[in-house]
Amino acid sequence: MENFPASNPTKLHFGKDVVKDLGAVAASYGKKVLLVYGKGSVKENGLYQEVMRQLTAIKAEVYEYSGIRPNPILEDVDAAASLGRDKQVDCVIAIGGGSVIDSAKVISLSIPVYHSAWDFYSGKSKPLAAVPLIAVLTLAATGTEMNKFAVIQNNRSKNKAGWGHDLMYPAHSFLDPGYTLSVPANYTSFGITDLIAHALEAYFGKGEASLPDRFVFAIIKEAMEYGPQLMSNLNDYTLREKIMYAATMALNGLTLHGRTSGDWGVHGIGHTLSVLFDTPHGASLSVAYPAWLRLMQDRIPARIENLGLGLFGEADITKTITRLEDFFKSIGSPVRMGEIGIGDDQIQLIRDHMLKSKLSGAVQILGPEDYDFLLSKMLHL
Amino acid sequence: MENFPASNPTKLHFGKDVVKDLGAVAASYGKKVLLVYGKGSVKENGLYQEVMRQLTAIKAEVYEYSGIRPNPILEDVDAAASLGRDKQVDCVIAIGGGSVIDSAKVISLSIPVYHSAWDFYSGKSKPLAAVPLIAVLTLAATGTEMNKFAVIQNNRSKNKAGWGHDLMYPAHSFLDPGYTLSVPANYTSFGITDLIAHALEAYFGKGEASLPDRFVFAIIKEAMEYGPQLMSNLNDYTLREKIMYAATMALNGLTLHGRTSGDWGVHGIGHTLSVLFDTPHGASLSVAYPAWLRLMQDRIPARIENLGLGLFGEADITKTITRLEDFFKSIGSPVRMGEIGIGDDQIQLIRDHMLKSKLSGAVQILGPEDYDFLLSKMLHL
Repeated sequence: MENFPASNPTKLHFGKDVVKDLGAVAASYGKKVLLVYGKGSVKENGLYQEVMRQLTAIKAEVYEYSGIRPNPILEDVDAAASLGRDKQVDCVIAIGGGSVIDSAKVISLSIPVYHSAWDFYSGKSKPLAAVPLIAVLTLAATGTEMNKFAVIQNNRSKNKAGWGHDLMYPAHSFLDPGYTLSVPANYTSFGITDLIAHALEAYFGKGEASLPDRFVFAIIKEAMEYGPQLMSNLNDYTLREKIMYAATMALNGLTLHGRTSGDWGVHGIGHTLSVLFDTPHGASLSVAYPAWLRLMQDRIPARIENLGLGLFGEADITKTITRLEDFFKSIGSPVRMGEIGIGDDQIQLIRDHMLKSKLSGAVQILGPEDYDFLLSKMLHL
Repeated sequence: MENFPASNPTKLHFGKDVVKDLGAVAASYGKKVLLVYGKGSVKENGLYQEVMRQLTAIKAEVYEYSGIRPNPILEDVDAAASLGRDKQVDCVIAIGGGSVIDSAKVISLSIPVYHSAWDFYSGKSKPLAAVPLIAVLTLAATGTEMNKFAVIQNNRSKNKAGWGHDLMYPAHSFLDPGYTLSVPANYTSFGITDLIAHALEAYFGKGEASLPDRFVFAIIKEAMEYGPQLMSNLNDYTLREKIMYAATMALNGLTLHGRTSGDWGVHGIGHTLSVLFDTPHGASLSVAYPAWLRLMQDRIPARIENLGLGLFGEADITKTITRLEDFFKSIGSPVRMGEIGIGDDQIQLIRDHMLKSKLSGAVQILGPEDYDFLLSKMLHL
């Protein structure tokens, strides 16, 4: 194992009706709240109303910033932070999925400063404080509810970047699987893909860590057992609960114990598709992972054999890759670019973007020849 | 799953030479330190000297309380707390295994008050504050380094009790597997037993939680794969590292996600042997677990079958119990009372103690007839 610190300050409230405790938690920070959410689906499932009921009960002053978009955009973050700064809010409450909570993390960090959030991402500025963040999650997918990372898209520079800081852990996260019952099939599927991809990025990271490897297998096997059942029973609370919990555990630090980092090369490929074609994050990952594994099968065969043993009880590399790919197909997550409307004619554009952004993983270093291989496998087998 | 909060404020520093950061951490709390340790083995492996080097460098005023005994004793806790109170220390540093760190947790809680620590255990008093605790671990076993529990023995009332409070998490825990290299074979073996027992107590707890079950299997399989290798290579750093990490994960809250409690009935049996005969904690558990599983095989067969499947790929209950028992034997941990010097002539004494202390688990409720069954299986098969 590599030396590692383990510390996760997020207080997770998991289970049915846990949101009833949100008012008391918010009141512990003060009266002024910046409430951040997306395009309004939180009003359809009653969650917005429940949160407002809680905030009214504690007589909070609520300032709303709504309309956060999927693949979260820098402009939203800067505008919401400006509102929070003007109103001198005591805490930020985010209701939504990964994009809303990622945005809110960076909003919390940006309220105390007078520059664009991108200055943190570019390394021009270092954060010294953050307004406490309370997250209320509505989508099982990214794991952002219990980690310090956030991905932000800068449309001006055509850049989608992940970054993390200890000040970015949510102070509290409320996870009621009941509020994920209305997530449609496609985003349910992409969420399952996303959590598996997170576990794999850790597995292919830097550092030998046998028990964290077993945790990776546990999380992926859980998703592979109950994910397909959920796709056939989208209204099943217990199945929603299993996937929501698995998604949190897939990226809350557990699988990274004993490693200095994950690889994150596949996420880089996925971000390229999202920034160019607005591809949903999970969908980009199920296209990229099989291609990446095929690129890696001669470079790290023992690692993929060990993965096959852990997941399927068999070391065969080809079968392991095919089984993962078939799993993504089985839950309706795309595995080729054609399925998400990207054809041969876009290859040059993607390749140029990969070159310009110096796309690579942290452990498995990718270069131009790899881009060609990956793109061909993402188009055809 | 049962609703659960997940939150663990302990900052874990894991790996080779991490203790070099202890001085800076201690300095963040102040200059006055209460240093707590056991009978002096920490002076033999150089750890005491390294800690003192760190504390000298930050010009700390160090007050020492040494001689904490295994199966930690209330009198030590009260005496050390009194010293810390007199000197108005800014933090407590504990160097040692489970007994020292358990004691230090209760010392930290008792320094601000003017009564015996037992008043917390009996429910007579509720803690409101604690002096920050820094733990430096020398034994892979109890998991106390990353949880809020402590077991204390009250020799006056012949009572050994576990109890926990949110104020009892160590603020920081330093785990360098190198400092466990000198642990002798018997205590290495008891530590492996202890961590497996913790995972099992969670598994048999209250609440269905499929992914935490998988984490239980992962932790036990890790211990069953590398434990025997360690017993043959006590000086192997990497094997020490694996067992030390597994012991921490076995009781830091992870396996209890989605459950309202573990069962802890087997720990109750173990504590009975420890308080009556000073049996080492881990040794008492390898004697008690096979007997308890034999008692449970008709009551919760599906649960034991599922355990067999998870650990051995086979649902057979008898084989599962025998395999666990054979594993304990294989690492040199006792499985019958005769091996720890307890004969037929002591049965009445043990039974009386069980009756008096109303021995039970939290989920599987035990009564007098169960005591007879358990005792007979702990004596003979």
